[in-house]
Amino acid sequence: MKNNKPTILVVNDDGIDAPGIRTLLEAMKELGNVVVVAPDSPQSGMGHAITISRSLRFDKVHIYPDVEMYKSSGTPVDCVKLAVNKVFKGKKPDLCVSGINHGLNHSINVIYSGTMSAAVEGAIENIPSIGFSYDDFTYDADFSKCVPFVKEIARQVLEKGLPAGTLLNVNFPKVDKIKGVKICRQANAKYAEEFDERLDPHKRNYYWLTGVLQNNDKGEDTDIWALDNGYASVVPVQFDLTAHHAIQYLNNWEINAE
Amino acid sequence: MKNNKPTILVVNDDGIDAPGIRTLLEAMKELGNVVVVAPDSPQSGMGHAITISRSLRFDKVHIYPDVEMYKSSGTPVDCVKLAVNKVFKGKKPDLCVSGINHGLNHSINVIYSGTMSAAVEGAIENIPSIGFSYDDFTYDADFSKCVPFVKEIARQVLEKGLPAGTLLNVNFPKVDKIKGVKICRQANAKYAEEFDERLDPHKRNYYWLTGVLQNNDKGEDTDIWALDNGYASVVPVQFDLTAHHAIQYLNNWEINAE
Repeated sequence: MKNNKPTILVVNDDGIDAPGIRTLLEAMKELGNVVVVAPDSPQSGMGHAITISRSLRFDKVHIYPDVEMYKSSGTPVDCVKLAVNKVFKGKKPDLCVSGINHGLNHSINVIYSGTMSAAVEGAIENIPSIGFSYDDFTYDADFSKCVPFVKEIARQVLEKGLPAGTLLNVNFPKVDKIKGVKICRQANAKYAEEFDERLDPHKRNYYWLTGVLQNNDKGEDTDIWALDNGYASVVPVQFDLTAHHAIQYLNNWEINAE
Repeated sequence: MKNNKPTILVVNDDGIDAPGIRTLLEAMKELGNVVVVAPDSPQSGMGHAITISRSLRFDKVHIYPDVEMYKSSGTPVDCVKLAVNKVFKGKKPDLCVSGINHGLNHSINVIYSGTMSAAVEGAIENIPSIGFSYDDFTYDADFSKCVPFVKEIARQVLEKGLPAGTLLNVNFPKVDKIKGVKICRQANAKYAEEFDERLDPHKRNYYWLTGVLQNNDKGEDTDIWALDNGYASVVPVQFDLTAHHAIQYLNNWEINAE
């Protein structure tokens, strides 16, 4: 490692060969020493899954001459755990960035997204962490308009840190010119699932999970509103799932199983 | 379906043949009409993963004569989505219960747990939802001391509902006599990962994820404190991950990428 520059862990869920992670590591090289630990295959929708019923592969790879890179057979969260334990060996990196995801991760998607779950795991490990996603799920997505924002947001997080127990979820719209950045809450939206039912060659049913996002949250302080209006959305995210506001209410229940 | 009785969806992450789900469905039969949708194999640690890069199997099974049951090749969250879409077809059940998990899901485990993620998905679908877990990860765990509490908590949730956007995470200690129920926040604890490194027969490395829970949170209002002191812990959980308290702070940042 070179001296005096911050160390930046780069992860993703689209896999180590995705153009999105290449864009992200190139941007991070301007800010610090980059270490990449990424899945060896696409892991979209893996949420906060960890691999406990199978073993894991974890191998050094040589793709870019000036970047330390590893691939793993595990999930995005496994990759962060492997990085912390096997690469950094307890000396935490200064920043963990995940993405750039091919496809948006706004609103409820934060909970399904491997990209965001990797960043959440970074935050659990007490590393300032950011997930980046772009509104183009194709392999050939052009991330160039995101890059100045990615660098500036990462630079400020390196400089200022983040409030304890929080990370950032950053999404970029696909527009001619990104108007700027809005700090948002996640929109209260959810999927209406549909299962595409098919018959296999042996005449047995199988199903593909599909769905349509339903957003009944018209708030102008939401990530969906920001993206629909040409802004990059920045949502502070927390990993303590306690609904603190409900504790007092539940204390009024008398739960007696005698 | 019989008339006038509530409909109760039972899910888990240990798989459809686990003793924990059998205990749970037997308890729920006393409260309503039970429908089980569960994974066809163990799915511990799957978090909020959904299956989008593979197709899913979903088949009716006949294990208990008086209970409608389905198994799926998908994750616990997939099972809830399949139940809502393919079984209930838009007419939501009155309650979703997940477990009883073979092993605790207190503190940070809520985010890794397939049991809890299934209950979280129930709550996202606007179904009053509860995850149950017991401090015995063996197949032969004896859940009998949990059952009176499981029934009473489910009965009260059926009667009163839960605050919007929340669900319950209920954990039971392994003690001679459960002292009662404590409403708690999740303890601020995390895992210190260790990877058990091995050599395969071809002399290549592989790794098993292991870890030790580190709890530096001595609060007597936490789930770990309750369990350590012989109480069942009940933590209200939310699925909106916005760190609302950080929005105002971030609004003071000037993020300008021009």
